[in-house]
Amino acid sequence: MILKSRHLLGLEHIQPEEIQLMLDTAESFREVSEREIPKVPALRGKTIVNYFAEPSTRTRVSFELAEKRLSADTVSISTSGSSAVKGESLRDTALNLQAMHIDMIVVRHKASGAPHFLADHVDVPVVNAGDGCHEHPTQGLLDLLSIRDHFGRLDGLKVAIIGDIAHSRVARSLIWGLTRMGVEVSVCAPATLIPLGIRALPCNVLDRVDDAIRDVDVIYILRLQLERQQAGLIPSAREYRRLFGIDRERLRKAKEDVVIMHPGPINRGLELAPDVADGPHSIILDQVTNGVAVRMAVVYLLSGRDGGSELGS
Amino acid sequence: MILKSRHLLGLEHIQPEEIQLMLDTAESFREVSEREIPKVPALRGKTIVNYFAEPSTRTRVSFELAEKRLSADTVSISTSGSSAVKGESLRDTALNLQAMHIDMIVVRHKASGAPHFLADHVDVPVVNAGDGCHEHPTQGLLDLLSIRDHFGRLDGLKVAIIGDIAHSRVARSLIWGLTRMGVEVSVCAPATLIPLGIRALPCNVLDRVDDAIRDVDVIYILRLQLERQQAGLIPSAREYRRLFGIDRERLRKAKEDVVIMHPGPINRGLELAPDVADGPHSIILDQVTNGVAVRMAVVYLLSGRDGGSELGS
Amino acid sequence: MILKSRHLLGLEHIQPEEIQLMLDTAESFREVSEREIPKVPALRGKTIVNYFAEPSTRTRVSFELAEKRLSADTVSISTSGSSAVKGESLRDTALNLQAMHIDMIVVRHKASGAPHFLADHVDVPVVNAGDGCHEHPTQGLLDLLSIRDHFGRLDGLKVAIIGDIAHSRVARSLIWGLTRMGVEVSVCAPATLIPLGIRALPCNVLDRVDDAIRDVDVIYILRLQLERQQAGLIPSAREYRRLFGIDRERLRKAKEDVVIMHPGPINRGLELAPDVADGPHSIILDQVTNGVAVRMAVVYLLSGRDGGSELGS
Repeated sequence: MILKSRHLLGLEHIQPEEIQLMLDTAESFREVSEREIPKVPALRGKTIVNYFAEPSTRTRVSFELAEKRLSADTVSISTSGSSAVKGESLRDTALNLQAMHIDMIVVRHKASGAPHFLADHVDVPVVNAGDGCHEHPTQGLLDLLSIRDHFGRLDGLKVAIIGDIAHSRVARSLIWGLTRMGVEVSVCAPATLIPLGIRALPCNVLDRVDDAIRDVDVIYILRLQLERQQAGLIPSAREYRRLFGIDRERLRKAKEDVVIMHPGPINRGLELAPDVADGPHSIILDQVTNGVAVRMAVVYLLSGRDGGSELGS
Repeated sequence: MILKSRHLLGLEHIQPEEIQLMLDTAESFREVSEREIPKVPALRGKTIVNYFAEPSTRTRVSFELAEKRLSADTVSISTSGSSAVKGESLRDTALNLQAMHIDMIVVRHKASGAPHFLADHVDVPVVNAGDGCHEHPTQGLLDLLSIRDHFGRLDGLKVAIIGDIAHSRVARSLIWGLTRMGVEVSVCAPATLIPLGIRALPCNVLDRVDDAIRDVDVIYILRLQLERQQAGLIPSAREYRRLFGIDRERLRKAKEDVVIMHPGPINRGLELAPDVADGPHSIILDQVTNGVAVRMAVVYLLSGRDGGSELGS
Repeated sequence: MILKSRHLLGLEHIQPEEIQLMLDTAESFREVSEREIPKVPALRGKTIVNYFAEPSTRTRVSFELAEKRLSADTVSISTSGSSAVKGESLRDTALNLQAMHIDMIVVRHKASGAPHFLADHVDVPVVNAGDGCHEHPTQGLLDLLSIRDHFGRLDGLKVAIIGDIAHSRVARSLIWGLTRMGVEVSVCAPATLIPLGIRALPCNVLDRVDDAIRDVDVIYILRLQLERQQAGLIPSAREYRRLFGIDRERLRKAKEDVVIMHPGPINRGLELAPDVADGPHSIILDQVTNGVAVRMAVVYLLSGRDGGSELGS
C-alpha cells in the first residue's frame, strides 16, 4: 500500500487508512532501531533538507536520526546562519533547494501555513515539523502510536488534553488524529488558553481538571509556555499549577490504569509533578522512542516506498 | 586531464583550458544528480571541512550536497560556535585542521585574501567559497556553465553586469572568467558603486542601463546590499529601482532572446522585478542546479582526480 | 583486552592499564588516518550524539572526525538552537536522547560534573569532552600519547605545567594522567591562579618559571583566559608575559631537548612566543593529530570493542 498524500502537512485532512499505514510502518521500523546495526539502505543516496526556522533539539535530532537510519544524506539549515538574515523569501528558498535536486524538505517554521506554502511551490515532498500554532503532525502520529501500543487499539478510547490549547500545534494535530481514529477527546484549560474557534475542533471543552481526567484512558498534558504569564493569560505559575497541574494527589481522581503523556520538554513541578512524569503511569519516554520510528515511516512512505514491502537490511 | 592548480582561489589567474575542464566535468556530474541514486563513490573516506566564517545558506548547502554526492565526509564550521570567539588566528585554525588529516578546506570569509592566506599555510587544497569583496570563483564557474549551456558556446557573447560592482566578489569572478573565455563584458552601476580600480578589470563601464542592456546576450543583475543606502552610496531604494532595476518595461529595450541571471538571493521588486525573475528569459534556477554540479567538479578535480576518468557509480 | 570503565569522565580514577590500552589503540588508529581511505567500518550504523553546551571548534571537529573515521553516524547539538532555550533539564535531555536509541553521548558543558550526572542517568557510554574547571580527559590522553611518542616512554619523565591551573580542566586531567603513568609533575602560576585545593593534586608548586622549567622534559603551557585580567587575577597581560610567558630567551634555561606543548588555542605572544610555538621544540601540532586518534580509540573502546582486535578496513 502506498500513501496517497504527497506531503505530510497536518492530520486534519488525512484519512484513517493513511494514519494506519503510517503507524504500521512505524512499528516495523521500531524493530530496526533495536538491531545491532540499526540501519536500512532504503533511502541511500537521497538527500533530505531539515529546514528549522525555529529552534528545536528534540524534533530536529529525531528527524535526523530517522533519516540516517534510512541511509539518507541530511543537510540541516537553521535560521541563525542562514540566508534568512539576507531576507530571502520562503518561496525563493524553496525553489533554490529544489533546483539543487534534493529529495524532501522537513520544515519547522514559526508561521502557521509555511509548510503548505512550501508544498505549493516545490515538486518534492514536504513534511511539517511544526508550524506556528497550527499543526505538528509527526508529534500527533507518535502520540497515536504510543497510545495504540499501550492499549492495543485506538477506537473507543477517551483522551483528555490539559493545558494551553490555544497556542498548541501539538493539541491540534492530536485532536484531529485521535478523533479520526475513533477516540473521544476533551480539552481543559483556563478560558484564556482555549482558542476562540474551539467549536470547529471535534472535542468537548471542560472547565475543571477533576472533571476532565475522570473516566479517561489518557491524560495528555501540554507544556505551559511561561511567556503566557507575561502576556496576562494566566494569573501566575503557582496558580496554574494549583488549578491545572497534574500531581499524585490529583491523579487519584483518574482511572487506576490511566496513562500520562506529555510532548516535552516538561516544566517539572509546573504542569506536571516530577514523580508523575517518572511514575508508573507515564509513557512519556515511549513517545520519544516512537518519534524516531514514526519519522522513519513518514519519510519512507513519502519517498514513494511501499509500506508493505520488506524492510531488509 | 588533470587540473594544474592545487587550489581554487579565484578566476583571475586561471587558464581557459582549466575552466573548460571544470565545466566539462561539471556537465558529467549534472547527469549524476539526476540518477535514481545520485551518488558516486569517488571521494569515499575523504574529509572536507566547510569553514564558513560568514553566514550563508545557499553556498554552504550547495557545497555540502556536492561533497556528499561524491561520498565525502563533511564537517562544517561556522563562526558562531567556533573558536573564532576565542580569538584564534586563521593560520592556527588552518594548521590545526591540517594536523587532523583532513583532505580539503572550503572557506568563506569576510576578509578578502583569507583563502589565499590559508592556501599558503596548508598542504591540502583550498576552495574559495567567497572572500570579502574579492572573488567567488565557484559562482563564476556556475554562471559560465549556465551561459554555455544556454547558448552552446561562450566565445563571442556579450554580457552586461548591472549593480554594485564595487562590493561584489561575484562580479569580479565573473568578469575574469567571462573575458578569459572570450566574452565581452560591460558593467553598469551608480558611480558610487563602481570600484576605483575599475580600469584594471577587463570590462567597459556604462552609465545608463538602457545602453548597457542593448545588444547583449546576457543581463546579469547583482543583488543590492541595502546597507549601501545607509552608507550614503545610493540615494534611495526607490531611486535605485527606477534607474537600475530590471523590469518588463526595461527589458523591451534588450534583445528578444536575452537571458536574465542573478546570483541570489534576489531583492524582488528592487534590482529585479518578480515577473522577470520568474519569466521566460530567466535562467536563475539553472544557475542553482549548475552550482552543485560545478562544486562537485571542483572538489573532485582538486582531489587530484582525472577529469576524463569514468564517473561510474 | 576490554576497557573496564563504561564511561570516560576523567583521568582521576582511571587505572594505568586502561590508559595504556587507550594509548595503544590510539596508535593503531593513527595509522588508519594515514591510509588512502582513512576509514574503518567498526561503528557502522551506530549513532553518537555530540552535545556541546559550550562553544568549541577544535574538540568538536576532532570528535566528529574520529567518529566518522569509525563509520559512525553523528548528530551534533550545540546550545544555541537547542532546547536549552526552553529550559529543559540536563536529565530530561539525557533521557530523551537515550529513548531515541542512540549509542553514545559526547558532552561538553560549562558545569563541572555535568558528564557524571549524565552518566548516572543513561545506559549508554558518556565521554567527557570538557566540563567546567574539572576535567578534559581526552585532552589529557592525547597529551600523554604525544609525550610517549616523543620519548618512547612516560615513566620517570618530568613535566612542568605553566599557567592558569585554577581554572583549567586540561591541567587537572593532565596532572592525574601523568602521575598515574609515573611522571613527576610540577605547576607554576601566579598565586591567584593556583587553586585553593592544590595540595589534593599530586604535583609540586613552584613560584618562579625559571625554577619550574629547569630540568624538566616537557614544558606544558596553558592558555591564559583574558577574562582573568578583568577579574583582577593578573595585574596585566604584559606583566603576565614578562613573568610567566615562554619565549626563546627563557627557553635557554631549560634542557636542550625540552619539549613544548600547548592545548590550543594559543595566545601568541602572551603565554607563548610565536617562534617557540612554531620552533623545533614544539610538538603542538602532533598533539592535534593525536587528538583524533585518541578520540577514535576512546569511542571505539567504550563501544565495547576489543582493543586487541584487528582494525581492518
